[in-house]
Amino acid sequence: MVKAAVLFDLDDTLYDTTHQVTLARRSAIRAMVASGMMASEADATKALEKVVSKEGPNYQHHYDDMLRVLGLEDDPKIVASGIVAYHEAKRTHLIPYPDTIPTLLALRRKKYKLGVVTDGLPVKQWEKLIRLGLANFFDTVVVESDEEKKKPSTHPFLKAATNLKAKPEDCMMVGDRLDRDVVGGKKAGMATAYLTGGGRRQKPTKPEEEPDYIITRLDDLMSIL
Amino acid sequence: MVKAAVLFDLDDTLYDTTHQVTLARRSAIRAMVASGMMASEADATKALEKVVSKEGPNYQHHYDDMLRVLGLEDDPKIVASGIVAYHEAKRTHLIPYPDTIPTLLALRRKKYKLGVVTDGLPVKQWEKLIRLGLANFFDTVVVESDEEKKKPSTHPFLKAATNLKAKPEDCMMVGDRLDRDVVGGKKAGMATAYLTGGGRRQKPTKPEEEPDYIITRLDDLMSIL
Repeated sequence: MVKAAVLFDLDDTLYDTTHQVTLARRSAIRAMVASGMMASEADATKALEKVVSKEGPNYQHHYDDMLRVLGLEDDPKIVASGIVAYHEAKRTHLIPYPDTIPTLLALRRKKYKLGVVTDGLPVKQWEKLIRLGLANFFDTVVVESDEEKKKPSTHPFLKAATNLKAKPEDCMMVGDRLDRDVVGGKKAGMATAYLTGGGRRQKPTKPEEEPDYIITRLDDLMSIL
Repeated sequence: MVKAAVLFDLDDTLYDTTHQVTLARRSAIRAMVASGMMASEADATKALEKVVSKEGPNYQHHYDDMLRVLGLEDDPKIVASGIVAYHEAKRTHLIPYPDTIPTLLALRRKKYKLGVVTDGLPVKQWEKLIRLGLANFFDTVVVESDEEKKKPSTHPFLKAATNLKAKPEDCMMVGDRLDRDVVGGKKAGMATAYLTGGGRRQKPTKPEEEPDYIITRLDDLMSIL
């Protein structure tokens, strides 16, 4: 029985990363067109998707490469317009789901301890928590940057449980990834809730991926816990 | 006689970079104290100055090193609080001098062409012009990133004059650095105006550094041109 703590993944669980990035890219492309880029928004979007899928999301020259894919000359004014618009939109849309804070408050009222278990660079993940206004909600935040120890390794889950002085079997892990949050949480001995939504519902392909609960919104947790 | 164009340096000429960075660092330190950093603002400021003077302004780990200098443990929450506050303050304080836009408008009414001659990364400098709301004021923007061609090389000055189809002797260069803006502008054959202010007034140490005009505010240009 989950009686001690509820642990949350961060990206696409406490806020809608995917939506945020989609809006930010759209905003960047519009700004570049407004700055004189001779391409339609539709063509630019396709070119950008091509660059992102080739170079990954953390590449530093998406827009330079996008101009090349479109057959246009490099133009620092256009690229800078895209970067400014992207960052402004990312900043504006870095907000929790509407039910994130109400759910955290309700769980805290029920005496659950709260934690975050996420992968990435600690300072980057903390920046998100701070900007989301969530930095002071959690009793522990475990950010795993070591490839070997990332989810679905049990390492970050057990570390969070230890920090909270809770037994794993008294914890629930909530996340949007079967292969990381559910597999890792189960392996660590925790209950798991799989958050689907935004068309991102995967089907478990093996028993380790079977979550205990499937929820479509965070506040569905209140009927479980 | 200056009859064709007025060229401006960017940083500390069209806006107050130094003030912006001072306010941003102060804001970062306050946020870190508010996040639990066990140090006074005064001690943290001293430690940060030490790190900045050792590592330069573009180093990525100022706050991590600052914690070390203060004898404190690394803490990603505190570092992230500083980074978020720094960026928010930098963004808020990236504004032109109160007389920048009125001066540019007045010069344009007098039929001067306007240019920027600055060193740095083109996309970064354009980002500043866009955020400053100055991106569409200039007939040419020359951003020199090649070490050999940076000010006081005549290269970027002559390039700006060529772009404007103006003779160098019909141009005036306005900037806050004797060793770069004045020396380079003079060498290129232009008139020069040295913008002092905020306690940054240097004394020319050699004839090449003697400006034609010394101004304390940009709108002093209106009594010259």
